[in-house]
Amino acid sequence: MRAVYEKVDGSVAAPAGFRAAGIACGIKSNGKPDLAVIASDVPATAAAVFTTNRAQAAPILVSRENLQAGAGRMRAIVVNSGCANACTGDDGLEHARAMAAMTSLALGVEATEIMVASTGVIGVKLPMTNVTRGIDEAVRSLSRGGGPSAARAIMTTDPFPKEAAFEVHADAGTFRMGGIAKGSGMIEPRMATMLGFVTLDAAVASRLLQRALKAACDETFNAISVDGECSTNDCVAVLANGASGVALGERDFAALVDALTRVCEPLAIGIVRGGEGATRLVTVRVVGAASNDEARQTARAIANSPLVKTAINGGDPNWGRLVAVMGRSGSAFVLEQSAVRIGPVELFRDGVPHDERAAEAAEYLKREEIDVEVDLGTRGNGTSHMWTCDLSAEYVRINAEYRT
Amino acid sequence: MRAVYEKVDGSVAAPAGFRAAGIACGIKSNGKPDLAVIASDVPATAAAVFTTNRAQAAPILVSRENLQAGAGRMRAIVVNSGCANACTGDDGLEHARAMAAMTSLALGVEATEIMVASTGVIGVKLPMTNVTRGIDEAVRSLSRGGGPSAARAIMTTDPFPKEAAFEVHADAGTFRMGGIAKGSGMIEPRMATMLGFVTLDAAVASRLLQRALKAACDETFNAISVDGECSTNDCVAVLANGASGVALGERDFAALVDALTRVCEPLAIGIVRGGEGATRLVTVRVVGAASNDEARQTARAIANSPLVKTAINGGDPNWGRLVAVMGRSGSAFVLEQSAVRIGPVELFRDGVPHDERAAEAAEYLKREEIDVEVDLGTRGNGTSHMWTCDLSAEYVRINAEYRT
Repeated sequence: MRAVYEKVDGSVAAPAGFRAAGIACGIKSNGKPDLAVIASDVPATAAAVFTTNRAQAAPILVSRENLQAGAGRMRAIVVNSGCANACTGDDGLEHARAMAAMTSLALGVEATEIMVASTGVIGVKLPMTNVTRGIDEAVRSLSRGGGPSAARAIMTTDPFPKEAAFEVHADAGTFRMGGIAKGSGMIEPRMATMLGFVTLDAAVASRLLQRALKAACDETFNAISVDGECSTNDCVAVLANGASGVALGERDFAALVDALTRVCEPLAIGIVRGGEGATRLVTVRVVGAASNDEARQTARAIANSPLVKTAINGGDPNWGRLVAVMGRSGSAFVLEQSAVRIGPVELFRDGVPHDERAAEAAEYLKREEIDVEVDLGTRGNGTSHMWTCDLSAEYVRINAEYRT
Repeated sequence: MRAVYEKVDGSVAAPAGFRAAGIACGIKSNGKPDLAVIASDVPATAAAVFTTNRAQAAPILVSRENLQAGAGRMRAIVVNSGCANACTGDDGLEHARAMAAMTSLALGVEATEIMVASTGVIGVKLPMTNVTRGIDEAVRSLSRGGGPSAARAIMTTDPFPKEAAFEVHADAGTFRMGGIAKGSGMIEPRMATMLGFVTLDAAVASRLLQRALKAACDETFNAISVDGECSTNDCVAVLANGASGVALGERDFAALVDALTRVCEPLAIGIVRGGEGATRLVTVRVVGAASNDEARQTARAIANSPLVKTAINGGDPNWGRLVAVMGRSGSAFVLEQSAVRIGPVELFRDGVPHDERAAEAAEYLKREEIDVEVDLGTRGNGTSHMWTCDLSAEYVRINAEYRT
C-alpha cells in the first residue's frame, strides 16, 4: 500500500512532541525575528547533511561534533539568522558551542543534544549578549503553535517563509512530519545559506534516518540551484522523536524516503521560487542519458547556465543555447538523436530545428512555471531533474549593491 | 638568449608570405563585413585546437577532416561571421565543404588545404549564394595590408577588433607572427564563439606546432571566461609558412611557445575586455595550491562565480564570497592558512578578517583593471591565473533580449 498524505498546519511543530519558537533578539539591526529553537519533549534521533564547502562555518563544525558525541541522539536545534558565524576563527567556535550550552541549560538537557545553525553575513562575530537573551526568550516561548514563527526567524531576506507538514498514513501506522527551510534572497548579506529542518514523530534508528535523509535530499535540496554557489553554512537536519507511537524500520525505508521527500520538495521548490531576482520557476528534465548521474550532470549544467537562464528571463525559446550546454556538460551526447522541448513544444529533434514552432514556445514562456526537457540522444535510460530560476538584471542589482 | 619582441602592424598579414582580406557579402543583414580569408603564398604547416563541446559545428568537422587529410599542410583559412553553421545537419556539412572547395578553386590549391570557421546564430543555414560571391571577392582582395579588415570581418558584435603582431628576434633567427581573434559581444546572436587565427613566417613541423599551440592556448585562450559557456564553434588555428627563411625545431620549442603566447595573450585579454556587459577586466591569481591543476580549478571557479562577479561589478570588496568559492572549488584548502587579496589590500589572512581595510579595497575596485589573488593555504607551490570580467545587469539585458 502506498502511503496517503494529508496536509496539516504547524510545520516543524505539527508532529507530536515537538514545540518551536521564533523571536527577535537584535542580531538583525532591523528588529526582525532572528532566533529560532525547535525542541522535542523526548529524546529524538537525528540525521543531518552538511555543506560540502571546505570552508565550514563554526555551527556546522559544532553540530557535527555533537551528532557524533551523542551517537545521533538530539533534543533541539537552535538557529540564528543575521550572522553566519563563518570565518570567525576560534571565537566563532566558542560562540557556537556557547549557543548549544545555553540552549541545553534552558531545556535541562545535555549540551551534546543540541544542533546549532547560523545564516547571514560571513566574517562577522555573533553579538553574544543578544544571543544569550534570545535563547532564553525562545526556549520560554516554545509552543505547539510556534512552527510558523520559527520559519520566519530563520529567514534572511527570503521573500516568504517556507513551511510544509503532512500527516502520513503508512503501512507502519499514522505519523506526522513537518519542515521549514530558508533560501537565498540577499539584499544585504554577503552569502546565501540554505537551511532546512524537518521533524518527525515516528521512531527511526539514526543510521536509517541518515540514509533516508540523504536519499530525500538528493532529489530535493540537492536538485535546486539559484546561482550555482555553495554556502559555508548549508545544513538540512531531521529529528525523529517517536511520539506518535509509530516505529519505522528497515522495511519502511522506501516509505520513509518518500515521506521525507514529500516534505523537502515543497521547501526546496520554495527556495528556488524565492531565489534572488527570480521571475520564473524552471523545472529541467533530462532524459535519454547514459546514466542517472550523467543526466543529473547535464541538468545541473543547464540549471546553472547564464545563457539559458537569461534566455528564459527574456522569454526567448532559444534551443541553440540548450544544445550548446548539452554538448559541453561532459555527458555522453548524440546530436543526431537529441531533442529539446520547451513545455509541450519540440523545437529541435534528431539534428533538425523546428523554428516554425518558436512563436508557440515564446507564448508558453510567458508562464511563471516553465518545463524544459532535453533528450541527450544516447538511447539510454538515465533521467534526472533540477529546479532552477531565471537570471534577471535584478539578481545582479541585488548582489552588486555595495556593502562592507 | 631570450627572444626580443618588437610590435609591428598588420596582424595576420604581418608575417612574410601571408595575405588577408575581409569583405561584406550580405550574410549579416546590416551590411557589415562578414567574410574573411587568410592565405599563405606558399604551403604552410598548420595546427589547431577546437571546441571540446560535443555539439560540434559543421566547419569544425570539416577543418578537422582537412587537417587530417593534408597531414597538417594548409594554404588558407576562410571564415564567415553572422551564421554559425551549427546544428544544421547534412546541409550544413555540405555548405562547409563547399566553402573549402570554392576557396581552394579561387586560390588554385587543393580543397583539403583550406580550414573553415563560422560564427553567429546557431541553427540557421548559410546563404550560399552570398557566400560564393563573398569568397570570390575576398580572394581577389587578398593583400599584405588586409589583416585589419580580416579582423573586422570575423566580429559578431564584439565592441572592437582584436589584433596583434610581433617581429621576434630569437636564437634561430628573426621571424614574424601575427594574430586576430573574436569574442563575445552578443546583442543579437544566440551564441558567442571564440575564434583565433595566428600566422607565422618561420617553418615549423606540424606536430611541433600543434604541441606549442596547445601549450600557448592553455595559458591564454583557455585561461579566459566571460560567462563559463563553451561554444559549438570555438577554434584557434595557426599557419606557419617558413617565408622568413627561419626554421624552428625541437630545441626552439620553448621559444615557439613563448612567441605564440605573446601573440595569443593580448587577443585573449581583448576578448574578456570586450565581454558582454563587461566594465572591469579581472585577473584572478591562485597561489598556495597543492598543484597547478588545482590552482587552475579554483581560478576557474572564481572566474565563473556570479556572486564574485556581481560584487566586483558593484565595487564591493567582498572577501567572504571568495572564501566560499575557494571552499567549494574542489581543490585542497586550509582555511586557517588561507588569504584573500584585492589588489594590494589583504582582507583575510590565516582565518582572520581585516575588514578595517575594506574602504581601501573599495577604492581600488574603482579601477578598470582589477587583480584578485587568493592563497589556498596548503603551503603547496601550485599557481595559476585566469582572466575574467564582472557580471553586470547589461550582460543580462543583452542575453535576455528576445530573438527568434
